Amino acid sequence: MIYLDYAAATPVSEKVFSAMEPFFSSEFFNPSAPYLPAKKVREIFEQSKSELAHTIGAKAADLIITSGATESINLAFTAAKNGEILYLATEHAAVKETAKKYNHKEIPVGKNGLINIADLKKAINDNVTMVSVSLANNELGVIQPMAEIAEIIREERQRRLACGNKTPLYLHSDASQAMSLIDISVARMGIDLLTINSAKIYGPKGIGALYVSRGIKLQPIIYGGGQEGGLRSGTENVAGLVGFATASKIAKEHLNGNRKKYEKLSEILRTELKNAMIEPLFFGSKKHQLANFCPVSFPGVDAERLIFKLEEKNVYVSTGAACAASKGEKSHTLMAIGLSDAEIAGSIRISMGAQNDEKQIRKAGRLIVDAVNEEARRLGLLKDDNQVRRLSILKDGQKKTR
Amino acid sequence: MIYLDYAAATPVSEKVFSAMEPFFSSEFFNPSAPYLPAKKVREIFEQSKSELAHTIGAKAADLIITSGATESINLAFTAAKNGEILYLATEHAAVKETAKKYNHKEIPVGKNGLINIADLKKAINDNVTMVSVSLANNELGVIQPMAEIAEIIREERQRRLACGNKTPLYLHSDASQAMSLIDISVARMGIDLLTINSAKIYGPKGIGALYVSRGIKLQPIIYGGGQEGGLRSGTENVAGLVGFATASKIAKEHLNGNRKKYEKLSEILRTELKNAMIEPLFFGSKKHQLANFCPVSFPGVDAERLIFKLEEKNVYVSTGAACAASKGEKSHTLMAIGLSDAEIAGSIRISMGAQNDEKQIRKAGRLIVDAVNEEARRLGLLKDDNQVRRLSILKDGQKKTR
Repeated sequence: MIYLDYAAATPVSEKVFSAMEPFFSSEFFNPSAPYLPAKKVREIFEQSKSELAHTIGAKAADLIITSGATESINLAFTAAKNGEILYLATEHAAVKETAKKYNHKEIPVGKNGLINIADLKKAINDNVTMVSVSLANNELGVIQPMAEIAEIIREERQRRLACGNKTPLYLHSDASQAMSLIDISVARMGIDLLTINSAKIYGPKGIGALYVSRGIKLQPIIYGGGQEGGLRSGTENVAGLVGFATASKIAKEHLNGNRKKYEKLSEILRTELKNAMIEPLFFGSKKHQLANFCPVSFPGVDAERLIFKLEEKNVYVSTGAACAASKGEKSHTLMAIGLSDAEIAGSIRISMGAQNDEKQIRKAGRLIVDAVNEEARRLGLLKDDNQVRRLSILKDGQKKTR
Repeated sequence: MIYLDYAAATPVSEKVFSAMEPFFSSEFFNPSAPYLPAKKVREIFEQSKSELAHTIGAKAADLIITSGATESINLAFTAAKNGEILYLATEHAAVKETAKKYNHKEIPVGKNGLINIADLKKAINDNVTMVSVSLANNELGVIQPMAEIAEIIREERQRRLACGNKTPLYLHSDASQAMSLIDISVARMGIDLLTINSAKIYGPKGIGALYVSRGIKLQPIIYGGGQEGGLRSGTENVAGLVGFATASKIAKEHLNGNRKKYEKLSEILRTELKNAMIEPLFFGSKKHQLANFCPVSFPGVDAERLIFKLEEKNVYVSTGAACAASKGEKSHTLMAIGLSDAEIAGSIRISMGAQNDEKQIRKAGRLIVDAVNEEARRLGLLKDDNQVRRLSILKDGQKKTR
């Protein structure tokens, strides 16, 4: 099996699993119970929170443990109150759908998937209370310039202060995809609210966290026993948090090694894919992209057919965000970066991970090329010079429509 | 170790753990991804949902998978919309705190912890849209007469229909504590919305579900990728659900055997506890009580001191709901059933479970009696006839204040 959809899900690593195991069995106690074994579980819960916070340059008290990134985002946005939320057009559905509950506006992105700072500046008006920009995009892997964005936010805050406008303005970032490849420091990046997610970094599913800078007032979305400082009620998922914290520590330790590994694998893969009879269109911004991401389109072929063909060879890639793909929706992200319908239809998201090595990637590259070529032949693309021209005209046309 | 706080947390049983394990490792795929191994995970997710639904006499389509009981309750209450929520005074904080977001009213309970149907009838006015009654209480183990309650709801619905009042009225029940000892059938019980919880039935923490009768409209509290029919977004916690479903099947299979086991253990325990120098006050309704529950008070002693003394002997009991106990609050449940301050201060919640056997329970009973007697002596209670009289006066006084 060659799995190339680590952006959709990651297996729980052995170390993480071993760390979690006791909290299902011998250390199963409710951390709020009054006897010693339960108090020890509470201590471990708090220590795990500390370790997790540490990996983003924060303290345990700054984190609210949730059931995952989606919940974290929903909770983060409560800080926006009655103001307007600005978010990138390429944001994950969790951001887009939650923003719809508020006044909201999309900020366009460039063809490379990057924010245009001028667009952000223009969009910020007196009522904007939240700007939400994912640290790295879930389909493109594009890494946004958070420090630059934070600088704009700071300037606007100062302007408001000078004008006596007391409307708060916060920067939220979804770091779900970024956490295993980018060295995150909320202070250095100027992030006020940060969503982090266990399921994308070889931790268990069903656990996430929200970093909240001191002084920001949230509204709980789940009320009850008052856990997590009253901001997230419900018996603590201790095994989940221990797993998440362990995964985050491992990710942090291997940050540079992993980046180098994936940079190399990405080069190999891109070189292989260029052998296809249809010229691959690598999108996103190679310069500002997670090293393990290789989103690519073979315009003219149907990516869904590619996926099935590859599946038969035990190579697993996706067409984009799993939750959107399952509904057969056209990717809003690929539309936002101006891809044509044919480019979107021919696009696959390749995201590499722990189990991949050079041999696997070379093989996957060849199998993808084979599948693309087969499809190209089946569709009568490139059979003769006319076809080549037809395709290149098609591609020119697409470029104009962007 | 003699653990007697199964109402606070249960260990994950070996069978449940084995069932979950593959979904952390080899079957880690995102169930929304488009390739075959992910589709198989989707199938198992749906099958688990079916199995879980089956244990409460429902279908997979009627369940929304959540991160636990607290979230389920928060989601259930969105069906109340702008109407009023009625709930028992003894309900868990998850019900009480969530109800506060809506118009709400508490219904008192009798000394035995049971609902008084006349009180319910009286409280239902034209604006009531939701009645929330836990199937079995988390501190008392008292089982409420759901079918009778449902009958009142049905009558009120018919009355409204006849009057042209279109305000809906739903019955929600939190079955977190009940699921391992009561044969639940939502149809037979007339329950419209049912909260169920993995963490109390030897399943993992961080996973729960809400049963929703067809036609009831909920408002999501977590928006995003549109999972669970758009009512609960977020990547599915497959391992969690597989664990929950397995635990629910095991619980259902052993329902009668467990009930008999705990009835016997409860008799043994109660007999032992009567040997204490202070007469134990067993509260709740023995007739309508979960067989594994034995909430008891030794008026005059301090339960917190008892808990520490017992902890030294490796016997673990609690003073009530873990989340409330950890905040040092006086139990609203024990106040609601009219216990005096001294009775509340002297009360412990004993809830038995899988690891307990006759030998353990006899030993625990003796150790509790020893601890009570030690405390009684330390406090100078019962040293002479005067003390005995003083205590009995104290107890009479308490009874008057109910």
